[in-house]
Amino acid sequence: MARRPVSRPLTAGELVEQLRALDPAGRLVPELDGDPATSIERVATPEAAGTGDLAFIADARRLVEARLRPAAALIVTDGEGEWASSVRLIHPKPRLIFAHALDLLNPPPAFVASISPGAQVAPDAIIDGARVEAFATVGTGVRVGVGSMICSGAVIGRGARVGRDCVIHPNATIADGVVLGDRVIIHSGAVIGADGFGFEHDGARWVKIQQMGSVIIGDDVEIGASSTVDRGAIEDTVIGDGVKIDDQVHIAHNCVIGAGTIIAGCAGVAGSTRIGRNCMIGGAAMIVGHITICDGTVVSGGTLVAASIDEPGHYTGVFPTTDHRAWMRIAAALRRSGQRKG
Amino acid sequence: MARRPVSRPLTAGELVEQLRALDPAGRLVPELDGDPATSIERVATPEAAGTGDLAFIADARRLVEARLRPAAALIVTDGEGEWASSVRLIHPKPRLIFAHALDLLNPPPAFVASISPGAQVAPDAIIDGARVEAFATVGTGVRVGVGSMICSGAVIGRGARVGRDCVIHPNATIADGVVLGDRVIIHSGAVIGADGFGFEHDGARWVKIQQMGSVIIGDDVEIGASSTVDRGAIEDTVIGDGVKIDDQVHIAHNCVIGAGTIIAGCAGVAGSTRIGRNCMIGGAAMIVGHITICDGTVVSGGTLVAASIDEPGHYTGVFPTTDHRAWMRIAAALRRSGQRKG
Amino acid sequence: MARRPVSRPLTAGELVEQLRALDPAGRLVPELDGDPATSIERVATPEAAGTGDLAFIADARRLVEARLRPAAALIVTDGEGEWASSVRLIHPKPRLIFAHALDLLNPPPAFVASISPGAQVAPDAIIDGARVEAFATVGTGVRVGVGSMICSGAVIGRGARVGRDCVIHPNATIADGVVLGDRVIIHSGAVIGADGFGFEHDGARWVKIQQMGSVIIGDDVEIGASSTVDRGAIEDTVIGDGVKIDDQVHIAHNCVIGAGTIIAGCAGVAGSTRIGRNCMIGGAAMIVGHITICDGTVVSGGTLVAASIDEPGHYTGVFPTTDHRAWMRIAAALRRSGQRKG
Repeated sequence: MARRPVSRPLTAGELVEQLRALDPAGRLVPELDGDPATSIERVATPEAAGTGDLAFIADARRLVEARLRPAAALIVTDGEGEWASSVRLIHPKPRLIFAHALDLLNPPPAFVASISPGAQVAPDAIIDGARVEAFATVGTGVRVGVGSMICSGAVIGRGARVGRDCVIHPNATIADGVVLGDRVIIHSGAVIGADGFGFEHDGARWVKIQQMGSVIIGDDVEIGASSTVDRGAIEDTVIGDGVKIDDQVHIAHNCVIGAGTIIAGCAGVAGSTRIGRNCMIGGAAMIVGHITICDGTVVSGGTLVAASIDEPGHYTGVFPTTDHRAWMRIAAALRRSGQRKG
Repeated sequence: MARRPVSRPLTAGELVEQLRALDPAGRLVPELDGDPATSIERVATPEAAGTGDLAFIADARRLVEARLRPAAALIVTDGEGEWASSVRLIHPKPRLIFAHALDLLNPPPAFVASISPGAQVAPDAIIDGARVEAFATVGTGVRVGVGSMICSGAVIGRGARVGRDCVIHPNATIADGVVLGDRVIIHSGAVIGADGFGFEHDGARWVKIQQMGSVIIGDDVEIGASSTVDRGAIEDTVIGDGVKIDDQVHIAHNCVIGAGTIIAGCAGVAGSTRIGRNCMIGGAAMIVGHITICDGTVVSGGTLVAASIDEPGHYTGVFPTTDHRAWMRIAAALRRSGQRKG
Repeated sequence: MARRPVSRPLTAGELVEQLRALDPAGRLVPELDGDPATSIERVATPEAAGTGDLAFIADARRLVEARLRPAAALIVTDGEGEWASSVRLIHPKPRLIFAHALDLLNPPPAFVASISPGAQVAPDAIIDGARVEAFATVGTGVRVGVGSMICSGAVIGRGARVGRDCVIHPNATIADGVVLGDRVIIHSGAVIGADGFGFEHDGARWVKIQQMGSVIIGDDVEIGASSTVDRGAIEDTVIGDGVKIDDQVHIAHNCVIGAGTIIAGCAGVAGSTRIGRNCMIGGAAMIVGHITICDGTVVSGGTLVAASIDEPGHYTGVFPTTDHRAWMRIAAALRRSGQRKG
């Protein structure tokens, strides 16, 4: 099972100091307004925050709600809101400060390398300071880096590589020959390296095209529960450094996803499509195969992208929800427009 | 593996008596027209029903088809159709009577509590009259209630709670700290409590926001195969009593799904959205994050809901399927309409 | 874990001879233009091909790119392109020849039947020359045919049947009573035979309708990672011979999918729908329940099919992606059209 973080209280002053240690250049250091000895024990939403709680407020409208609660400390964007809490951590990016504060308040438990006697590990697998739980399978020729966890029921196929400090959650499957970088997180039920969907019809039936490629995943990638990344047909499917993929996303064979791109839940990318760097693909967006999407593109949720995008921008194509009867009228009008010869 | 029901024949008279026992107020008691000694051995569709078979007919048009077959008994809505079968169970809700008759004709096998020697159960887990199969993992601090089954390959993470009479099907994953009520069914491949999708960009990369919440699931909830319910960021994701979720549905972090709501296959709900009670969400519907949908809302399949719904009703937004050439003309017209300045 | 193919070099002449052996009628035999002793070691894309590599070119435009590389051999459609490679395999269907050449160059490793001592196999299961890996579960009454593999963590429920030469990939789940034909491939995370989504409201709550049917899968079927095929309510869900289903596809209860139909990733088919033979269903297409789609229908990706299709053809209904501002104008126009009384 995954390692859940454990709570560790800090004072407001200690928190600021530890944030400074994370980035000596000082970009993560909020201005502290209030008593640095105030104890912070956990995080909360502004609405629920009480004694010992740290909350963040990115939107000034929420300050009104927060005033009702005696939070230990609030992370806010500017000098406003003195009335909201006696301790404020002021920074232009409260959500970012909050993310780092969460890590400091909830560090991972101490890592203990071990191989469960209930795991199945090939004799020639090289497991170097990692943790392998019961009912996990590690195939022949596998290498797992220091600090990585292979959780219960996870399968690491023959010849796969798992970098350092990775977490392969329970019941995830990493197929033969797949390569994961460092600090990769694969959530439960995800399948990395199943065969791409390649067939050719011979006039009578579909002939399977062996999928000879693999999947190459960079560093700092996270792939959500029940997501699938298929192995390439001839060359590899490639997921760049720092890519974040939500649950139930499908990446078909031979896709290349550029570094820093983020893909929300239920999205799908068909085969051989190349998505650039630092794109944001909304939930349930569907992207057809064999196209190219340039760096920095934003695709709205639910949008089907049917052609290459060459200019960064924000692209949308979803039918607006409406009252069912109104929709029937719209649909009828659309059908009529299709019956007219253009 | 799950416990499949076993068949047990009843006479028509016994069936009516046992339905009466289920609801002494009599709402489940059909009027029996025909020989109460007629033996009913199993259920069938009206088209396939034969001797020993019980079928239901909710739609009078199907009576014509049913007449062709000598079913043992038919559940029908009213006094019509005497010619269709010599034994009729007459009730205004035939499908409901059929559902209960199915349970009476096919009771679950006797439950035998046991922990397989091939399971991995933490010494401090409290398993109270439950059944744990081989290759199931039960983490430290877990409690499992009487009558529950943890099937092969299922994982119950540290500190999770499973109520009474639950079934966790093979290869399902319940992450650390998740709480399930009584009579909850989690199908194979489902993942409850994976990390919500929370990141904040620091100018160079996406910083993971630890997901500190959990998932709280009420009583009588069913969650389909390969569905995912993510743990909350700060507070919990909550699935109310009696919610039914089909396969391949994604519920993102911090959603609250009201009691009695039903969500069909391939639907997705983005983060922090609150869906009311007794809603019906169609298959492949996609609901954006941070909105509220009021009690009793019906969303058609395939619809993207992009804004809060404050009035109960039936909402739809799907592009009508059409001939491909007609569609190309519609699409061109739509694009032109977007080029005109509004 | 799945058996990955192993590479075996052939000369161009041997390759042509082995293709001839596959189909004595000669339909798979390309014309060889060049030195038959040329060694072919592996496959590559035209862009990456080098010494020892075989590539195929279905599109003459790619010949220009291919000219830049000294591939060992090219499969091409006609007599053109002599300048592109000194060895050409000329055939009207280069991709089909490539598919077979791949198999010949990369045969599966020798199959060794064995049952891992780490597997859980019911004493009465009949496993006839198959391979069962660690942490696989095979229930009571199961039969597995010669040459089949049940990979790590896969579960075969009570009374299920697995034909000959099947591969059940790691962490796939085959529920009780499901029947698979010969040469069936079920990828990781797929769930075959979970309960269909059947409930009836009794005025207070949803009553589960026991799902009494099973899933019957024909020969030569492939089902992708994390896909789900639900068991039937009364009768069975049926997947015909030669059907190919991609990842993350959902087939609801009581569907019948005709032989030779192919369904791309993220598609969904709601309950009791019948899809004919030799259909092509695009990725993320959603098909409502209780309809019939005739043989030979093509549905574009992302299309929602809301009514039966009686005439073979190509059907589409997706909103065209566009610039976000243009989309807002289109959406406003559509909403206005719905407000007018038709």
